[in-house]
Amino acid sequence: MRHHRASLGLHPLAPVHDDHAKHERQDLFWSRVRTTLREPFSEFWGTVIMISFGNGSIAQVLLSSGQTSGAPGGNGFGNYQSVNWGWGLGVMLGIYVAGDSGAYLNPAITFSNCLYRQLPWRRFPAYFIAQLLGSMVGSCIVYANYISAIDYYEGGHGIRTVPPAPKATAGIFATYPQPFVTKASQFFSEFIASAILMFVVFALKDRANMGMAKSDQWFPFMLLFLIFGMGSCFGWETGYALNLTRDFGPRLMSYALGYGHEVWSAGGYYFWIPMVAPWLGCMFGGFLYDAFIYTGQSPVNAPFLGLSHFFHPRREVRAKLQGQKDLQMV
Amino acid sequence: MRHHRASLGLHPLAPVHDDHAKHERQDLFWSRVRTTLREPFSEFWGTVIMISFGNGSIAQVLLSSGQTSGAPGGNGFGNYQSVNWGWGLGVMLGIYVAGDSGAYLNPAITFSNCLYRQLPWRRFPAYFIAQLLGSMVGSCIVYANYISAIDYYEGGHGIRTVPPAPKATAGIFATYPQPFVTKASQFFSEFIASAILMFVVFALKDRANMGMAKSDQWFPFMLLFLIFGMGSCFGWETGYALNLTRDFGPRLMSYALGYGHEVWSAGGYYFWIPMVAPWLGCMFGGFLYDAFIYTGQSPVNAPFLGLSHFFHPRREVRAKLQGQKDLQMV
Amino acid sequence: MRHHRASLGLHPLAPVHDDHAKHERQDLFWSRVRTTLREPFSEFWGTVIMISFGNGSIAQVLLSSGQTSGAPGGNGFGNYQSVNWGWGLGVMLGIYVAGDSGAYLNPAITFSNCLYRQLPWRRFPAYFIAQLLGSMVGSCIVYANYISAIDYYEGGHGIRTVPPAPKATAGIFATYPQPFVTKASQFFSEFIASAILMFVVFALKDRANMGMAKSDQWFPFMLLFLIFGMGSCFGWETGYALNLTRDFGPRLMSYALGYGHEVWSAGGYYFWIPMVAPWLGCMFGGFLYDAFIYTGQSPVNAPFLGLSHFFHPRREVRAKLQGQKDLQMV
Amino acid sequence: MRHHRASLGLHPLAPVHDDHAKHERQDLFWSRVRTTLREPFSEFWGTVIMISFGNGSIAQVLLSSGQTSGAPGGNGFGNYQSVNWGWGLGVMLGIYVAGDSGAYLNPAITFSNCLYRQLPWRRFPAYFIAQLLGSMVGSCIVYANYISAIDYYEGGHGIRTVPPAPKATAGIFATYPQPFVTKASQFFSEFIASAILMFVVFALKDRANMGMAKSDQWFPFMLLFLIFGMGSCFGWETGYALNLTRDFGPRLMSYALGYGHEVWSAGGYYFWIPMVAPWLGCMFGGFLYDAFIYTGQSPVNAPFLGLSHFFHPRREVRAKLQGQKDLQMV
Repeated sequence: MRHHRASLGLHPLAPVHDDHAKHERQDLFWSRVRTTLREPFSEFWGTVIMISFGNGSIAQVLLSSGQTSGAPGGNGFGNYQSVNWGWGLGVMLGIYVAGDSGAYLNPAITFSNCLYRQLPWRRFPAYFIAQLLGSMVGSCIVYANYISAIDYYEGGHGIRTVPPAPKATAGIFATYPQPFVTKASQFFSEFIASAILMFVVFALKDRANMGMAKSDQWFPFMLLFLIFGMGSCFGWETGYALNLTRDFGPRLMSYALGYGHEVWSAGGYYFWIPMVAPWLGCMFGGFLYDAFIYTGQSPVNAPFLGLSHFFHPRREVRAKLQGQKDLQMV
Repeated sequence: MRHHRASLGLHPLAPVHDDHAKHERQDLFWSRVRTTLREPFSEFWGTVIMISFGNGSIAQVLLSSGQTSGAPGGNGFGNYQSVNWGWGLGVMLGIYVAGDSGAYLNPAITFSNCLYRQLPWRRFPAYFIAQLLGSMVGSCIVYANYISAIDYYEGGHGIRTVPPAPKATAGIFATYPQPFVTKASQFFSEFIASAILMFVVFALKDRANMGMAKSDQWFPFMLLFLIFGMGSCFGWETGYALNLTRDFGPRLMSYALGYGHEVWSAGGYYFWIPMVAPWLGCMFGGFLYDAFIYTGQSPVNAPFLGLSHFFHPRREVRAKLQGQKDLQMV
Repeated sequence: MRHHRASLGLHPLAPVHDDHAKHERQDLFWSRVRTTLREPFSEFWGTVIMISFGNGSIAQVLLSSGQTSGAPGGNGFGNYQSVNWGWGLGVMLGIYVAGDSGAYLNPAITFSNCLYRQLPWRRFPAYFIAQLLGSMVGSCIVYANYISAIDYYEGGHGIRTVPPAPKATAGIFATYPQPFVTKASQFFSEFIASAILMFVVFALKDRANMGMAKSDQWFPFMLLFLIFGMGSCFGWETGYALNLTRDFGPRLMSYALGYGHEVWSAGGYYFWIPMVAPWLGCMFGGFLYDAFIYTGQSPVNAPFLGLSHFFHPRREVRAKLQGQKDLQMV
Repeated sequence: MRHHRASLGLHPLAPVHDDHAKHERQDLFWSRVRTTLREPFSEFWGTVIMISFGNGSIAQVLLSSGQTSGAPGGNGFGNYQSVNWGWGLGVMLGIYVAGDSGAYLNPAITFSNCLYRQLPWRRFPAYFIAQLLGSMVGSCIVYANYISAIDYYEGGHGIRTVPPAPKATAGIFATYPQPFVTKASQFFSEFIASAILMFVVFALKDRANMGMAKSDQWFPFMLLFLIFGMGSCFGWETGYALNLTRDFGPRLMSYALGYGHEVWSAGGYYFWIPMVAPWLGCMFGGFLYDAFIYTGQSPVNAPFLGLSHFFHPRREVRAKLQGQKDLQMV
């Protein structure tokens, strides 16, 4: 099993926090599969939960907009703030499901953890695939749950439209920008919000600065407020994707489910921005944190701010890999 | 007392967490009754609290809809989000009252704990009866509290109507589906939401995956957000019953209080769906968690995913019972 | 100082939780006054904070109702839910200020703690006076802060009206019932909500039932949600006073500030209900908790449910007092 | 490095909470700069985060007011409560970033900690400059993010107006009072809210009164609710600046960005009130806490309530400085 896990890029030892793994039936075939694929399974289901709540909250609020009869309070079943809470608690509960693998349901954060926090790069592909599949399954669940309501809202069976159509429902799944926002502002909005996200996540995890330990219950709880804040303060112009899997997975799924080519072309082919900006934003936010506050091991705390990596890449990579082998991480 | 408790299906020793039980007056008649019936009493009162806040929040928001005079803010006394908070905090406070018996105020979760988490099946009946009675008493309290407001809202003394009547108040007590939702969607909505509920509850309780210990204050607190999320993301189409006692108890009570036969026939005899779907949903959600993430003792971590139970039922049951006896659990 | 404290009914030793009291300057006159009156000062300021936030939230939401210009979102500065949060966090922060003296800013809860939890009765008067004065000062602060806004809202300098007048502002300070609620429903609403409040507070404090220890940070935090829930679920008909000092202190103050005799006569001389119902409700809720769940020392856990107190009052009181003296509590 | 830190007024030893500082690369130039300027950098970035979320929440809610198409719920992207949450979580996350230096992103609170809690006065200038620069950078980020939306809302490229203009956006950055509030009420509102803020912060930090230790995760979390409460209960009349840097920094920035001279003259030259009132309010609130509740070392716990400082200033200052030197704090 150690061999299989290592070949997938995972830590040779599965992160099972107690003596469960010593259970007598752990040598069954499926138990071994489950232990081998522990982190990918965790990331997959964590992302399913995140997207189910997140996309589900938009679906409920959007599709019930303006309903007066049968609605307690007489004005639909939620408002924009419900969407903020939905994404916030979706991320929180998703991370409780996923445990603390350093991936955080977001490939851009996984990427920053590889870049700045010694998460081995070979972990990345398995985490990424699990996150992407999870987001596709999560958006499927929401689609299946609300299919009759979408028909009802769009005005007929099988009608599916994309913003800025007046009764568009594609916004349930992927994000679409406000019409007045220029391309540069779209990019900047996703970039700066991702940078703040990464900066605060690193602060919350920095033990040297009042941060939280691994398996501290506070960390996912604080993400509730961080994501809520992203939606309340930076969520209007572009919909705060901040995450390739949150946006691309459901977008692909909505394309497959019949929303048509407009899911790609809407907003001036906006779709590539949440695929690109979060990586750069998280990289920038992580750089700022490490440059100004972080005192631990980081490439930024290296000669020439770590730029030596670019001059002697092979030597650096070999040294890093050797260090990980010494720690039996790979 | 151990004998009485065992004959009711309870653990021979009452779960009193400290040395209170050593108090000198514990041999009084009523003290012995209280200790004997500790978990049923706890579940009963926990459910009373849950339903009081939950049904109470719907009552307040529905009956005050659109009131402008005397309402701070000029638009009633709450909105749909207040209902989400009301159910969330009702479940949280109810579980604080009930302690951590593994029953969680919901017979479908009790059932999953019996099925997957070694809670002895003989606990089930006493918990279930306590939950059902508690939900009936809770809805009675809300009815008694709002009786004059219901008269006022319905338009006359003793008028009681059921959705989709325009001034219906039966929705305070039980759930009624939105009119456009097909029978299959009704079932799916309750099923999938119950599955997510069970999945996340198992994750929050899984010590091997960053989960929370018994008597950890975080667990009920996280249920606040989980139930809030259920209401915000999956609460519109069918009203997120997710729980036989939450729906059937108050429905029975509303029938007894004069809402008429429509409480059963409304929504195409919808009433049976929240009686059936939560069991299947919780069973499915628990199965998924155990199949993909849980590493502890579970029938799913057994040869053929535990299906051997179906081939040799008698032998399995006898072995399980013997194990429980060895642990002095029954 | 011990003598002075005992003569005021307080514990002979001031509850200072660390070695602060050993500070060299503690023999100054005012330091001794402060230590002697520690709990009354704490309750006083805790109540000031509670009422400042609580009354302040109603003032802001009511007086800004419907304001469109300059209001982010275009609809005033808060809604009914803001009032729920305001009271909830007011109680939470007030209890953080007041510490954990068993008084909880509410004389009815103080009373129940005397009755059921061995808080000596002689503590009651000092706590009660401190709470009442604190609520008067708190409402004064809110009045002083919003005086020009009240003039503006009422339509002229010095105009002060009481519900059901269309521009009434007396509801900022004290509670007034909805017009359709009968006298019996008014009483029941305050009674049952107080009973639930006391029941849950006792549950949260019961260490034998997953409850919280003294100086546990969770307890005040959970009161945030409990009070929020009271406002969301039982707050419409009568305004959830649940507390003599929360209602009577600000009412007296509003009378003194010129709101006229209607503060007493409004709602069919409603004012006496929040003065009476909370005591009975808290007594009933505490009785239920002790009868069905509590396993510790309580008069309910005594022969004939503690009714022997009524048969041999003198003997019981003497025995209780002797017990407290043995523990050096009085 | 100790010398450089001392000459900046900082504690000779940088507050790095673990063994990170022993990292091999800490002798690089930039690592030494980072350690030398640790607290100013922390305060700077904490303030950036606070202002980004706070100003960002106002920007989003104000600029999207009344938008119906594409808005889930059909009424903009947030309401006034979102602004309260935005500031609350901005302060919370900012303090997590800043750690626990006693500065709390607010020079008036820093000032009170110097005055009443033995924070050396020489810390003040470096903290203050860092906070002010941080607030300017934070408001720049928000401006850059929303620049096209501001153009769209104001009605044209480069149009920038200040309240009470009907489409004013200057309120995103600095606070402007409601038009009916008199100068005295403006001052009182900021003064009393600052006093309550300081009073509760001191209570939350007072270990002798159930308060929280350094690096306790609860303290920043409770500030979330404290600031939320400030916005819900005392936020309407003057916008709850409570903090020179929160108001003056963004105001200066908005002036530099072209909002014109009205940012100073609006509201009858209101701008000086949030520059002055918070200091007096925090001083008063801290005095009240120390006079009535605090039992630790404080000038108020000194002969004549600490007024001797005014009679023998030189002697007092010298004694204080000697004490700090003995503790190696300066």
